[in-house]
Amino acid sequence: MRLRNKPGAKEKMNEYPHIIIQNPSQHKGKWNKLFNNNNPIHVEVGTGKGQFLIGMSKLHPEVNYIGIEKYDSVLITALERAIETNQDNLKFLNEDVSEILDFFEEGEIDRVFINFTDPWPKNRHEKRRLTYKGFLKLYEEILNEKGEIHFKTDNQGLFEYSLESLSGYGMSLHNVSLDLHKSKIEGNVMTEYEEKFSRKGMRIYRCEASFKSK
Amino acid sequence: MRLRNKPGAKEKMNEYPHIIIQNPSQHKGKWNKLFNNNNPIHVEVGTGKGQFLIGMSKLHPEVNYIGIEKYDSVLITALERAIETNQDNLKFLNEDVSEILDFFEEGEIDRVFINFTDPWPKNRHEKRRLTYKGFLKLYEEILNEKGEIHFKTDNQGLFEYSLESLSGYGMSLHNVSLDLHKSKIEGNVMTEYEEKFSRKGMRIYRCEASFKSK
Repeated sequence: MRLRNKPGAKEKMNEYPHIIIQNPSQHKGKWNKLFNNNNPIHVEVGTGKGQFLIGMSKLHPEVNYIGIEKYDSVLITALERAIETNQDNLKFLNEDVSEILDFFEEGEIDRVFINFTDPWPKNRHEKRRLTYKGFLKLYEEILNEKGEIHFKTDNQGLFEYSLESLSGYGMSLHNVSLDLHKSKIEGNVMTEYEEKFSRKGMRIYRCEASFKSK
Repeated sequence: MRLRNKPGAKEKMNEYPHIIIQNPSQHKGKWNKLFNNNNPIHVEVGTGKGQFLIGMSKLHPEVNYIGIEKYDSVLITALERAIETNQDNLKFLNEDVSEILDFFEEGEIDRVFINFTDPWPKNRHEKRRLTYKGFLKLYEEILNEKGEIHFKTDNQGLFEYSLESLSGYGMSLHNVSLDLHKSKIEGNVMTEYEEKFSRKGMRIYRCEASFKSK
């Protein structure tokens, strides 16, 4: 996701503090109070324009969703959509994923989604990939014992890298699909990128990963 | 690989005991004496007609190769080719892979190749797949600490399954390729199946897996 300035984005976000949560570290360890229930919490890192998480929050009212996106120029679109759908179980953070330990307590999260993230194809940018071991360590901290990472991408190189990174970190892979839209996996909610790339006939790759053997 | 009887196959194999090793359990722990050197030993399970291993043995005279194939109807073709090329570093066993602990000492092997093995697509046949955890346990026994499994297939379902099985067994994946013939991986020797399927434009999937983090 490229950074572009969007005039007035930050100001508009401030007008909707029940959707774009300000000072998320204040809610660390007590997100269930903010959601006013004890439902599981699923986090999407790099949530972009929010299409995936808005679709998921409609499909699964029994789950709370938090999308994290550092660029306000794209998150503003997620906000506009969220105002329309008005789902209580959906919040966004205009923050950097590398800071998630400030926002969530150890084991507070049930699932992390990583969807169509920037592949950073150059080797020297490996550490910026959201499936790099440095990020896996952060996810491991905030996920509970049965927590899972759900990952999908159109980028073959990033998927190959991620299979190595996830298994190299000691994680087990589950429900691997090397052509998601021709697979039997049900209930898939598409992201913006996913719609665009699958229309072009490109394969979508997907896997789940867990820290403990199921 | 389907079983077909080939008249006279067994008899011909008996005529070449320096290529098709009889009573392999007699050589357990001392294959380096049979090869008359201390070069690493690479084993291909389900070696079929032997094209891959014959190609590899020509390319890598510094490695000893052993191909295991239970069906004499296909191994006879490997024998005929091996008689022609006459490589000292290539042997075959007309045996069942499930018995490899009888043939090799713990840690005696440096690499296991699994190429275009029967996918056994039905769930109830999972235990027959050569990447099933029961087989991984056997490979783990015979491989040394730095030992690796190198796996390739055209079968998407088997590859997806194998990524789950290998990672679920605690193995790290390396050099994953989801389209081998368009990748940068060099020195690939093709099997009969690989030539056939890649001519049809089908993707070849490949990965390496190790028990210890590199």
